[in-house]
Amino acid sequence: MITKMFSSVREKCPLVHNITNYVTVNDCANAIIAIGGSPIMADDICDVCDITSICNALNINIGTLNRRTVKSMLKAGKKSNKLRHPIILDPVGAGASRLRTMTAKKLLKRLNISVIRGNISEIKALALGDTSTQGVDANELDKVTENNINMIIGFAKNFSEKTGAVIAITGEVDIIADKDIAYVVKNGHPMMGKITGSGCILSGIIGAFIGANPENIQDAVLSAVCVMGICGEQAYLKMTKSEGNATFRTKLIDELYRIDEEMLRKWAIYEMR
Amino acid sequence: MITKMFSSVREKCPLVHNITNYVTVNDCANAIIAIGGSPIMADDICDVCDITSICNALNINIGTLNRRTVKSMLKAGKKSNKLRHPIILDPVGAGASRLRTMTAKKLLKRLNISVIRGNISEIKALALGDTSTQGVDANELDKVTENNINMIIGFAKNFSEKTGAVIAITGEVDIIADKDIAYVVKNGHPMMGKITGSGCILSGIIGAFIGANPENIQDAVLSAVCVMGICGEQAYLKMTKSEGNATFRTKLIDELYRIDEEMLRKWAIYEMR
Amino acid sequence: MITKMFSSVREKCPLVHNITNYVTVNDCANAIIAIGGSPIMADDICDVCDITSICNALNINIGTLNRRTVKSMLKAGKKSNKLRHPIILDPVGAGASRLRTMTAKKLLKRLNISVIRGNISEIKALALGDTSTQGVDANELDKVTENNINMIIGFAKNFSEKTGAVIAITGEVDIIADKDIAYVVKNGHPMMGKITGSGCILSGIIGAFIGANPENIQDAVLSAVCVMGICGEQAYLKMTKSEGNATFRTKLIDELYRIDEEMLRKWAIYEMR
Repeated sequence: MITKMFSSVREKCPLVHNITNYVTVNDCANAIIAIGGSPIMADDICDVCDITSICNALNINIGTLNRRTVKSMLKAGKKSNKLRHPIILDPVGAGASRLRTMTAKKLLKRLNISVIRGNISEIKALALGDTSTQGVDANELDKVTENNINMIIGFAKNFSEKTGAVIAITGEVDIIADKDIAYVVKNGHPMMGKITGSGCILSGIIGAFIGANPENIQDAVLSAVCVMGICGEQAYLKMTKSEGNATFRTKLIDELYRIDEEMLRKWAIYEMR
Repeated sequence: MITKMFSSVREKCPLVHNITNYVTVNDCANAIIAIGGSPIMADDICDVCDITSICNALNINIGTLNRRTVKSMLKAGKKSNKLRHPIILDPVGAGASRLRTMTAKKLLKRLNISVIRGNISEIKALALGDTSTQGVDANELDKVTENNINMIIGFAKNFSEKTGAVIAITGEVDIIADKDIAYVVKNGHPMMGKITGSGCILSGIIGAFIGANPENIQDAVLSAVCVMGICGEQAYLKMTKSEGNATFRTKLIDELYRIDEEMLRKWAIYEMR
Repeated sequence: MITKMFSSVREKCPLVHNITNYVTVNDCANAIIAIGGSPIMADDICDVCDITSICNALNINIGTLNRRTVKSMLKAGKKSNKLRHPIILDPVGAGASRLRTMTAKKLLKRLNISVIRGNISEIKALALGDTSTQGVDANELDKVTENNINMIIGFAKNFSEKTGAVIAITGEVDIIADKDIAYVVKNGHPMMGKITGSGCILSGIIGAFIGANPENIQDAVLSAVCVMGICGEQAYLKMTKSEGNATFRTKLIDELYRIDEEMLRKWAIYEMR
């Protein structure tokens, strides 16, 4: 099932419209190409409707939001909703500032969002109003562990019911929940936390997966999360002792380019909860 | 002749003012340094006149245009025209949205542009009003083939006559036309289509080539296109089986750094038409 | 002493708020992570106070300044001053345009800046009103040599006394001066001038060093400058003949990730003047 989602990306080459931050935008673009999609970046309010109309999905990332681009996000989102294109929202830094928390909430309120992907602190900030986010990384205290995972799965299902979106909480353990079913993914490597943009890249490729599989949003997200985790593992395996996080970044995108159905089938580790 | 254009870049270290998108801007900067130029990025309307005045060429790229930067493009362009600095226009996504098509046309109308470089769909959108551009890539139906190449060369020559600019249509086959003469370049590798920014990087280094050779615009563009194609070929040759598009991106810029006159003389494949 | 500054970065993982240019922002983020800090980028005027409040230091870089972000720099800076967080200013291109020179001067006047880091031409433009900056690189005529180094050290001490900031003039030779003491650092490699962003990356990691060592600003800057120089040397040593500046960029950040106390102690070359 996850391999079918994946091969559909490679076959359809979905166009993904990205309104995203200027920090990791290049990595997102190369990652979307690597996985088999085609990225377009456009953030002017006069440009976003035309661009989103020719695309298959919209990726909204608030990493370096400003008031000009927030308006564009809303406009692009409304157009996408009208065209029934899926939207993924990456609420980067929600909980770290009022503007970020409020903007993410406003987008959730005014748009039909198909997927929300963030770390546990960001998702808690959106769902519960917590403001414990440490910059753009999850707060240590929020971490998903064997002890609290059932509680967090319940929380994710509730938040999915409330928002209508598939909730992807990613970190050491990844949870992908709709209101009824949750998947727990155990792929990935700690090195992914040592580069900027692992989360943004994942959101970008989720854009490609849901663009190619709009009828199966949760399965598409599950597949993307497994793919990303496996590529992180493989990239780490290929590093030598004299290399560091910049090389890991390059190898991570290389692995997104190289992964195939067989690797995905063989190495994906997930269970339904 | 193309080697002379190239060595003049290495000798003169031309300064290139870039008003360009935030997706591929870092690659453009490193590519311009690699080839022997010096890049400056400045897009505030109060900054662009001073910056363009100390430069040798202006590279305008509308990849992530917004209304603020379009005004800066016009202002910088007028100043460049006054100083008789060459300008290259990269109409990224012309044909994919009205804003992009209209902006590129406006820039062409109000400024004396020395070079227009785009894929076939973008150039057709500008010249004919076609809107078949698929995102930021050329439409499959527009592709240059042995069957239609003579027609496209004629079209490029006409568009050059109309605009006064050298027209560079790049893709599997590259065409560099002024109103009288066209060159067809056969260097390059399909892998160049698997990263974001191959076109932007080429436009950036064309900026360096025309900045160093303002009296020989067409030859300078031809030389830059050959250099880029050869570097794409060489970068691909150096990839191992376990590498992907991110490594290719790094190696492509590395090759721009390493290429010398002898490699260019030996490997350039072009003919006059 | 420089090793203590360094180990404190690794222990404390300081958060660095960056308002910086879109050319080298990704490299800055990965470099800050590599050295042991945590980067956040935020430039909207409604976002910067919240973000800077949760951070340990503020890095202001005017590389692609515009009027919107200049206001955010001032607002973030005032908040940082109120919270007694250290601020580093990187006056990219001061001397190359009036907007850049004036903006850097305005920031210096209105804010208490802890560190100013630039090349010799940029620092002269701020201190003396010179406008000889060649784009974003130092003017050849300004270069620090054995003949003029004592004069430049005196100039740096004076400028430090006038501004209250530690002055870091970096290039082939690096000078780190407060009003009384100057350090001269001889680490580094010419290859660092062949990529975009060596200066920006250094400013970014200085942000991490002063964020972790707010009571020892000059020592923290000295340590950061030695670290950067050593990593440049090591990155160059690991390049093969077939590689170029893009690979060097990757390896430079890798070295920032790999450097440890022992390497720093063994290879740092500096003297007090």
